This record gives sequence, C-alpha cells and structure tokens, in this order.
Amino acid sequence: MKILVIGAAGTIGSEVTQALQEQHEVVMAGKSSGDVQIDITDPNSIHAALDKIGKLDGIICAAGDVVFNTFEKISREEWDVGINSRLMGQVNLAQIALSYLNDNGSITLTSGIVADYPIAYGVSAATLNGALEHFVMAVSHELPRGIRINAVSPTVVSESLATYGDYFPGFHSMAAKDVAKSYLRSTLGIENGQTFKAFAGN
Amino acid sequence: MKILVIGAAGTIGSEVTQALQEQHEVVMAGKSSGDVQIDITDPNSIHAALDKIGKLDGIICAAGDVVFNTFEKISREEWDVGINSRLMGQVNLAQIALSYLNDNGSITLTSGIVADYPIAYGVSAATLNGALEHFVMAVSHELPRGIRINAVSPTVVSESLATYGDYFPGFHSMAAKDVAKSYLRSTLGIENGQTFKAFAGN
Repeated sequence: MKILVIGAAGTIGSEVTQALQEQHEVVMAGKSSGDVQIDITDPNSIHAALDKIGKLDGIICAAGDVVFNTFEKISREEWDVGINSRLMGQVNLAQIALSYLNDNGSITLTSGIVADYPIAYGVSAATLNGALEHFVMAVSHELPRGIRINAVSPTVVSESLATYGDYFPGFHSMAAKDVAKSYLRSTLGIENGQTFKAFAGN
Repeated sequence: MKILVIGAAGTIGSEVTQALQEQHEVVMAGKSSGDVQIDITDPNSIHAALDKIGKLDGIICAAGDVVFNTFEKISREEWDVGINSRLMGQVNLAQIALSYLNDNGSITLTSGIVADYPIAYGVSAATLNGALEHFVMAVSHELPRGIRINAVSPTVVSESLATYGDYFPGFHSMAAKDVAKSYLRSTLGIENGQTFKAFAGN
C-alpha cells in the first residue's frame, strides 16, 4: 500500500513511518521537511501536495497544533490556532483526501488524551480533541467507496516527558513506538469511526 | 435567584423560562426579542447585555446555530457558522459570564443529540456539539467561586417535528417542557461538568 504520513518527522510520526516502511511505501510529509511539504491549515497546500503525490491507500495525520492557556486568559486568537489546525486542518484534510484515496482507503487523524482527562491549561485541547473524535464518529457513516476514518488519541509520549511531563502530573506515558501501533491498526485494519485510545491506566 | 435565559423566545427557551418563573426572576434575552438583546457570536454584544443586567445567579443559553450539509459539500464558511455560534459563541459566553455571576452561580449551554447519534447532513452539528460537551467537562475543573457549568443535549423536540422531523427518522422526540427539566436540574442542582442528555430510547 502507498501511505502518506503527515508529521513524519515528529516523535510519533517517525515511529509510524518506520513501522509502516517494513511492508509499505510511505510518503513522508511535514510543514518544512519530508518528501512533500503540507501545511494542514491551508487547503491549497493540502491540494497541491496531494496532486503531487497522486493516488493513495492511506493518509495519516500525526500533526495539529493547539494553544495551552487557562480558561480565564485564553483569547479567541489562541482558540483559532487549534480551530484552524487541530480541528479544521484535519477536517479539511479528510474532505480533500476523498478525491485522492483509492477504494477502501483509510484516513487516520490525531486527537489526544486531554479529550478524556482534563489538565491545567488544556481547555482548548480538550474541546478540539473531543470535536475531532465526534467528527470521526459522525463522518464515518458518510464516506464513499469503502473509505474508513479513525482517530488516535495518544497520552503524553515517554520521549516528550522532559518537555511536557509537567503538564501531565501522574499520567502514565507511552513510548511513541507503542502509540504507533494504533495508527497501524487504523490504517491496516477494518475499523471505522473509532477513536483508538493510546493510553491505559490513567 | 436571578437567571438569564438566552433564546427565551425559542421552543425550548420559552418552556425553560416558564418553569423558572414560578420561583425565580428570569431575564429573557434573544437576538431581537426579550428584555435584552444578545448576539452570542459577538463578544461585545455579550458584554453590553451583561453590563445592563448586572449580577446573575444563573445563565442559560438555549441558542446556537449550526449549518447542515453533507460532508462532501460543506464549506469552511458553513463550518464557521457553527464554530462562531454553537461552539465559540457559547464558549465566549461562559468566559465572559465569569465576571457577572455571583458565587455558586451556574452556566448551562446547549449541545444536541447529534453529538451521539449521527444524522445525514449533521457532520458539523455532531462535531461542534461534541466539542461543547468536552469543553464543559474540561472547564468545569477550572471555574472559580463555586461556579458550575453543564450542557443540555436535547433530542428533536416534538414541537419541531413538522420542520425537522425528516432529519431525524426513527428518533424519539421529546416535548420541550420535558427537555426544559434538564436546564432546571443544571441551574438549580449541584452537578458540574456534565452533559444532561434530554433523550431516551434512541
């Protein structure tokens, strides 16, 4: 299969890429690195990149920004970063992807554990991760030609604990290579409309 | 208690208003009707209205637009109607409300059954209702001075079946006066961070 990984240079994306490359052709994409460049906040950038790549069997998005702040202080501009990237960046990607995916292809998006377990400064992440999970559930009933869509909701990955660990006090982390399994399950399996929760014991 | 009902002229809002008026002072608000006018998509309008009303014990929002269309055809402009009204209109209302609510006051927002049960043309409603429910859950842990926040998720109300019934084939409807009970439970009870699902048997 030919599979596009957006965010392929990231902590999770690089493990997903490595695992898939054992048996599949992977096109690596990033904002400024990889085989092709994609800025998911810009539909023109998505179209241009997919035009260049051609038909695909799977699209994985391991990218999507969101701003962390307290509810009292968070501004609409800060909300809009997440609305345009984490939520609508991935929604637009899914919509545009339908024209480039082969029959029975798959789309895998990324939400996050904060949808289920709130953390300080995480109100926008919780809201927009939750939005994305409801999107995947709802839109799965509308997709044509056997195309499937799922989300992966990772906990904080072990490799990022030095940077983000303080935001997740007492949370169990997971190694990125274990989180990557959920992306493979979504891409290579048969499930549709699901959120794979890449966390346990929280 | 002094309670603001936004969307007080609506099918649900009018039943909420009538039920609360038996024991409480209700300020009725709407885009163009009521004691005060509020357009929840405009933070300046929210501020101006709350300045005029003064301190409150409860704020209920039974308003919030969203556009219905197929996933293939829905445009970013159509998504933005719901983002600015259903989601960020109510999020902004909650944020601004913190400056006007008395200690132990409450905020009650409105999502909808499509968050849980997808319908044709409902992808934006499902996504943004879901976002709102995750918002309420997450932000409930941040609110100061005993202030609580909940959402009510109504099914299609019986009074609207003539207009919207075809969108909800086989769904059980509920009379608006029964949906109104969930708003009273949120406003007058002790629960926090919950979504009251005003539907059953679907």
